[in-house]
Amino acid sequence: MTFAPGTFEIVARDGHARAGVLHTAHGAIETPIFMPVGTQASVKALSSADLRALGAPIILGNTYHLSLRPGAERIAALGGLHRFMAWPGAILTDSGGFQVFSLRERRTIDEDGVTFRSHLDGSEQRLTPERAMEIQAHLGSDIAMAFDECPPSDAPVDVVTAAMARTTRWARRCAVAPRAPGQLRFGIVQGGTDVALRRAHLGEIAALPFEGLALGGLGVGEPPEVMHAVVGDIAPAMPADRPRYLMGVGTPEDLRAGIRAGIDMFDCVMPTRNARNGQLFVRAGRLNIANAPYRDDPRPVEEGCPCECCASYSRAYLAHLFHAKELLYYRLATVHNLQHHLDLARRARAAIIAGVAGQATW
Amino acid sequence: MTFAPGTFEIVARDGHARAGVLHTAHGAIETPIFMPVGTQASVKALSSADLRALGAPIILGNTYHLSLRPGAERIAALGGLHRFMAWPGAILTDSGGFQVFSLRERRTIDEDGVTFRSHLDGSEQRLTPERAMEIQAHLGSDIAMAFDECPPSDAPVDVVTAAMARTTRWARRCAVAPRAPGQLRFGIVQGGTDVALRRAHLGEIAALPFEGLALGGLGVGEPPEVMHAVVGDIAPAMPADRPRYLMGVGTPEDLRAGIRAGIDMFDCVMPTRNARNGQLFVRAGRLNIANAPYRDDPRPVEEGCPCECCASYSRAYLAHLFHAKELLYYRLATVHNLQHHLDLARRARAAIIAGVAGQATW
Repeated sequence: MTFAPGTFEIVARDGHARAGVLHTAHGAIETPIFMPVGTQASVKALSSADLRALGAPIILGNTYHLSLRPGAERIAALGGLHRFMAWPGAILTDSGGFQVFSLRERRTIDEDGVTFRSHLDGSEQRLTPERAMEIQAHLGSDIAMAFDECPPSDAPVDVVTAAMARTTRWARRCAVAPRAPGQLRFGIVQGGTDVALRRAHLGEIAALPFEGLALGGLGVGEPPEVMHAVVGDIAPAMPADRPRYLMGVGTPEDLRAGIRAGIDMFDCVMPTRNARNGQLFVRAGRLNIANAPYRDDPRPVEEGCPCECCASYSRAYLAHLFHAKELLYYRLATVHNLQHHLDLARRARAAIIAGVAGQATW
Repeated sequence: MTFAPGTFEIVARDGHARAGVLHTAHGAIETPIFMPVGTQASVKALSSADLRALGAPIILGNTYHLSLRPGAERIAALGGLHRFMAWPGAILTDSGGFQVFSLRERRTIDEDGVTFRSHLDGSEQRLTPERAMEIQAHLGSDIAMAFDECPPSDAPVDVVTAAMARTTRWARRCAVAPRAPGQLRFGIVQGGTDVALRRAHLGEIAALPFEGLALGGLGVGEPPEVMHAVVGDIAPAMPADRPRYLMGVGTPEDLRAGIRAGIDMFDCVMPTRNARNGQLFVRAGRLNIANAPYRDDPRPVEEGCPCECCASYSRAYLAHLFHAKELLYYRLATVHNLQHHLDLARRARAAIIAGVAGQATW
């Protein structure tokens, strides 16, 4: 039995937590899921075979970066992003909103869209809701995100409410823009850390015909306990029949809090970026491979971890590669950290199905 | 039927060219062979699984680099170099002579050995023939190279002859030094580009109980045609019953000339280093992935090449990764270039067995 892209089945609930299956044009995604970030058409240091070996069903691509280089039209001419990066699984593309609004000194905003300067060559560029959706249609992603205005975490309330209103107007334009065959569209809920604002904006975005809903503007500098409280309040209020995506999050603790609140999807550069900086995630916490004792440690990073790094190599070897700045280090460390985050989500799903999601064992 | 390490069978000859099998403690090596260079216990950007997928039966490790970091005694305590880098195939370690003599401003030589400063921290270090062999015994390589004096390519004749004499005295010490179980020892023939000197030194080194003989001090700056002429003269004069190894060489043209002259083994950083700089080897020549047209080229680097890079990815994708400095580029390009060099040696072997080594088709 196959399902149309966009079909979202919930197979189990435990408290607010849900175990589901999201059907896309490139496969079914068991949720909760952590999505590795492949900003520039590559999850840094990994091949598509590496990602398949990790069992990742979906990865992210980035509209801002890909539209600047190599260019959305070029990728379309080469057969789309899946073919370009030889990735048979699903791809979610963000809309570029978050990146563009991070260029504080280099962009001007108007009602129709944003004009900004490329970080690569300083050239003037423009993104509108329609262009963001057109780029994502060119890329041929399975899930396209609406183009939103993402205010800083310390923005005053009038800035936050103005961004919410603009995001809603832009969301209406995104929701009717052309899309690629089978492509799903997700709306983005803003509102900062104010739960009342979040609820108000959720009402506006949930009223639009998006196949999924995301929380944007969290994990952008506010304390984790603040973010967990906001997610704990707002996630259960999101429509139960659509997937819920917490954007740009996060740590293992963030994933646990989010999943318990009913979030289905996460993405974050943390496991990949921290791997390159020497921080490896293990179930007991974190390990900094630069620390001296690891030079002589014959154990794998994590005993029992099925990843290529732990299956074949010792902490001593990883420490050597790290100190010697050998390219292999970045790949092995990235493989391990992604295995950690993917396995955390898998254990969460099993715990939800078993009705033990409230326990701290996953 | 298994053979003792060091057994060298010649299975076919065609002109001076030979197809053979060298038995080591970590497997049989079909010759002619190109050996990827893993200077710091890693063939740059590749895992041991990558090397197995390439079908590489033997790789290099480097005494100078590994003794400085992570340290030979540390690797021994961790179970040896094979276990350290999770490499089940054979390993040849150079003796450190070439690296130490390249540190022109930072070393002093005496009859017993060489004192030099580490390129990592400036600390004073010492290598002698006995210490070079001890390090290689700690590493547990399958083939250990004698510690030699390698003069520059433009050295005057008296410097070359003095280096030959010292290399012979050091070779006698290396030939009786302790070694790891099953470890083979190869002697190194110096003599610059003067064939008469080469023949004289070959006589001295061939008289010692080495299981193989290498030509050192070639491919160090002299014109390729000069090197090819020297190899063409000296290789056929090397003992026919022992493997012949041309150190640090080279280009596809160098491999062809060497194989036709009767060389069995090669190593060079060229395929791996050039890959990282954007130069990809194809049967028709070389391709610089930085060139603009490749950005839109949907073809693989080389049609029909079985490597992971060519099997899955386009020139356009590689060009994108190269321009974006994505880590995956370095691995894919390295995989391809090593496949090229390994396949060249495989085709040479098949041509020798078929009696068509003189033809230009391999």
